[in-house]
Amino acid sequence: MRFDRPFERYVVGERHRSRGRTVTEADIVAFAGVSGDFFPLHVDETYARRTRFGRRIAHGMLTLSLATGLYTLSPEWVIAFYGLDRVRFVRPVGIGETIAVESEVAGLLDRDPASGIVVVDQTIVNARGEALVSGRIRMLVRKESASTGERE
Amino acid sequence: MRFDRPFERYVVGERHRSRGRTVTEADIVAFAGVSGDFFPLHVDETYARRTRFGRRIAHGMLTLSLATGLYTLSPEWVIAFYGLDRVRFVRPVGIGETIAVESEVAGLLDRDPASGIVVVDQTIVNARGEALVSGRIRMLVRKESASTGERE
Amino acid sequence: MRFDRPFERYVVGERHRSRGRTVTEADIVAFAGVSGDFFPLHVDETYARRTRFGRRIAHGMLTLSLATGLYTLSPEWVIAFYGLDRVRFVRPVGIGETIAVESEVAGLLDRDPASGIVVVDQTIVNARGEALVSGRIRMLVRKESASTGERE
Amino acid sequence: MRFDRPFERYVVGERHRSRGRTVTEADIVAFAGVSGDFFPLHVDETYARRTRFGRRIAHGMLTLSLATGLYTLSPEWVIAFYGLDRVRFVRPVGIGETIAVESEVAGLLDRDPASGIVVVDQTIVNARGEALVSGRIRMLVRKESASTGERE
Amino acid sequence: MRFDRPFERYVVGERHRSRGRTVTEADIVAFAGVSGDFFPLHVDETYARRTRFGRRIAHGMLTLSLATGLYTLSPEWVIAFYGLDRVRFVRPVGIGETIAVESEVAGLLDRDPASGIVVVDQTIVNARGEALVSGRIRMLVRKESASTGERE
Amino acid sequence: MRFDRPFERYVVGERHRSRGRTVTEADIVAFAGVSGDFFPLHVDETYARRTRFGRRIAHGMLTLSLATGLYTLSPEWVIAFYGLDRVRFVRPVGIGETIAVESEVAGLLDRDPASGIVVVDQTIVNARGEALVSGRIRMLVRKESASTGERE
Repeated sequence: MRFDRPFERYVVGERHRSRGRTVTEADIVAFAGVSGDFFPLHVDETYARRTRFGRRIAHGMLTLSLATGLYTLSPEWVIAFYGLDRVRFVRPVGIGETIAVESEVAGLLDRDPASGIVVVDQTIVNARGEALVSGRIRMLVRKESASTGERE
Repeated sequence: MRFDRPFERYVVGERHRSRGRTVTEADIVAFAGVSGDFFPLHVDETYARRTRFGRRIAHGMLTLSLATGLYTLSPEWVIAFYGLDRVRFVRPVGIGETIAVESEVAGLLDRDPASGIVVVDQTIVNARGEALVSGRIRMLVRKESASTGERE
Repeated sequence: MRFDRPFERYVVGERHRSRGRTVTEADIVAFAGVSGDFFPLHVDETYARRTRFGRRIAHGMLTLSLATGLYTLSPEWVIAFYGLDRVRFVRPVGIGETIAVESEVAGLLDRDPASGIVVVDQTIVNARGEALVSGRIRMLVRKESASTGERE
Repeated sequence: MRFDRPFERYVVGERHRSRGRTVTEADIVAFAGVSGDFFPLHVDETYARRTRFGRRIAHGMLTLSLATGLYTLSPEWVIAFYGLDRVRFVRPVGIGETIAVESEVAGLLDRDPASGIVVVDQTIVNARGEALVSGRIRMLVRKESASTGERE
Repeated sequence: MRFDRPFERYVVGERHRSRGRTVTEADIVAFAGVSGDFFPLHVDETYARRTRFGRRIAHGMLTLSLATGLYTLSPEWVIAFYGLDRVRFVRPVGIGETIAVESEVAGLLDRDPASGIVVVDQTIVNARGEALVSGRIRMLVRKESASTGERE
Repeated sequence: MRFDRPFERYVVGERHRSRGRTVTEADIVAFAGVSGDFFPLHVDETYARRTRFGRRIAHGMLTLSLATGLYTLSPEWVIAFYGLDRVRFVRPVGIGETIAVESEVAGLLDRDPASGIVVVDQTIVNARGEALVSGRIRMLVRKESASTGERE
């Protein structure tokens, strides 16, 4: 999703598709290193082959994290990431798959005079359009009407 | 949480507290690099100082990812990360804060003859015990009663 | 610079200032690791203290590389990075300095029916507005008038 | 180039060829992470395939940065990287290509009683000897005749 | 080895086999970056092909370091890594090999009232069971009988 | 040690001192990520403070790995790292300490017509000259007298 505007300018139902990113073995290795999650499904090919997945796959949290890197986040308007709801890791993500984020504004929650929450249903898909991760994200966004605030 | 047993051996209400991990500037820089999320609140000190947070803070997804590295995940029993619900980034996480994960089994969902979902309410806390991230995770776990399956 | 349009839409003299990024010790360590440049001015505090710089400083190539991460590069229009001219590392960049890129379109070179080169004078500055790195970059950009080409 | 001597000991026209380094997918992923440059030509295989390059390629700045890691930089004599001139990214650098740096001293600029600038024309080549990046670098080097200075 | 108990509970002769980890190109690139060891046998495919090894191989120290990540280290009982003896890099470790650690307690050295050294013979093996690295490690471990000490 | 010559040109008793490298928090975080060793003494400040070390310290294997990056390894003559003996982690290495390697050739083992083993006693020291890690390393080195072999 493009979070590139003040809160008032989002419309429920608007849709967006992000650019893509290829999930590489190097990403999986790097994410294991950052998170500390070395579960063998991600870093042990011998183990992974014997599972239902048949090969090493990306951490669910890696795929979800890569999605956040595909958002457009305007420093002018975005305040902070607010929350996640009903995230499901629907399909395994293998090495070499190219993901993109399809999103739709699902709701707009007024919060206070200066900000609101943009609720977005997002599906992380692969190049064949298959859903990999579904879920809802909430982004805290400044209002245009906010008097010159913290950022001035 | 310690996911170190077959599905049948979890009890609703059991609790666990993980060991800790200090969130460093290097973690934030590395996570920006893996995720591609270079929102200035995380990597631009000048910008961050003028926000309500007053300093660079960790990505919410970094804190959540570090939590997964604090789980115990037995290769014998854990199948895959299944999902996340109602995750809220309650407090900002600054450089130098040491986080830990407090968790409680909230539900046990039978899924098929070979596996079930362990539902866990987790709170990521700092060294003062303040909640930083709350939420619920779902882990897909093998049953002990499963006939010798994919892993044999 | 925002490379977010077809070649025809740049105007000589137009200016832009990027968002910022704080150069951290972790960036220097990571860049040494990627480039293989472990010159002690960057990774040996004892050595660095005895130099004219008085402390560890960022690799010039790191500062220059961070600048490229501050460009806006539209996948629709940017073809490739074309070249660099007269880059000078004017001031050392210390740990904790926040850099930004000030740029001005200096020339527009028609190249072929489908593309042109946008020439940009750029100055990487710190939070006090001091020039750290000066130089000129050349970006190969598609023309709007290009018949549906490689990207269709 | 081997910057392993005081300024007085370089001769215009002397040549050098560095050892090699293979550019891997992991290098591209790491460089995207350090620089923040996630342009899809480098990290989105689906996008890259449809470009004139036909596949993901290394960032120009990565290739240039790897070259600096192939220099010999004597802590005794090298003061700092001074500048770059007329760098051109002549050919795309694909995953798996092994690069090396061919260089020739092009000029020697006296600067002050203690130091001078060694000007080097460098060509980064692949294993087939094809030029990938051409350009000129300037390195600030101590003089042998310098009275015991900052480094004593 | 599982260092998950107080010193008194180890028995000479007990054996353990760790889970596995696949050594990837990304690990080699990352280890070169952390250690600063860019010897071309690890990062230059053209060079490596002409050696007796015929291809890039992992740093011996990388394989040894990966082994430490496969130990179980209980924060409750492990004090520190004490030493290494007679480590031999027996076979080259190629990209894609999955390693595991086979270990056997070789000795138990009483050290003081609060701690002892567990001496372990370890062999790092590949998926075909071939020895890659042999050696002995020494781990400093708390005694159960230690009066409440530093960790209370 | 400078491994920059054929086997015949080393002399028992010759000494060398390497350049230095400062051990940073970023190195510790990166090494935890590469090795998978997230023992809390290295990554949990709250835990580390209560230990005898009083603060987070570097992994012993990190210090040892950094030392290998401080060797000079001539691609012409060095064949491979052969082994390690009697390595002892004598003193903890804190964040910010600058290490260097002091070494002395302790033995020369003829191995076959083409190569020999250079045995080196090494002490990794800090800026105050205190020993941090002691041990012996073995490097397999080509002979000058070797008929044109694998590398021609």
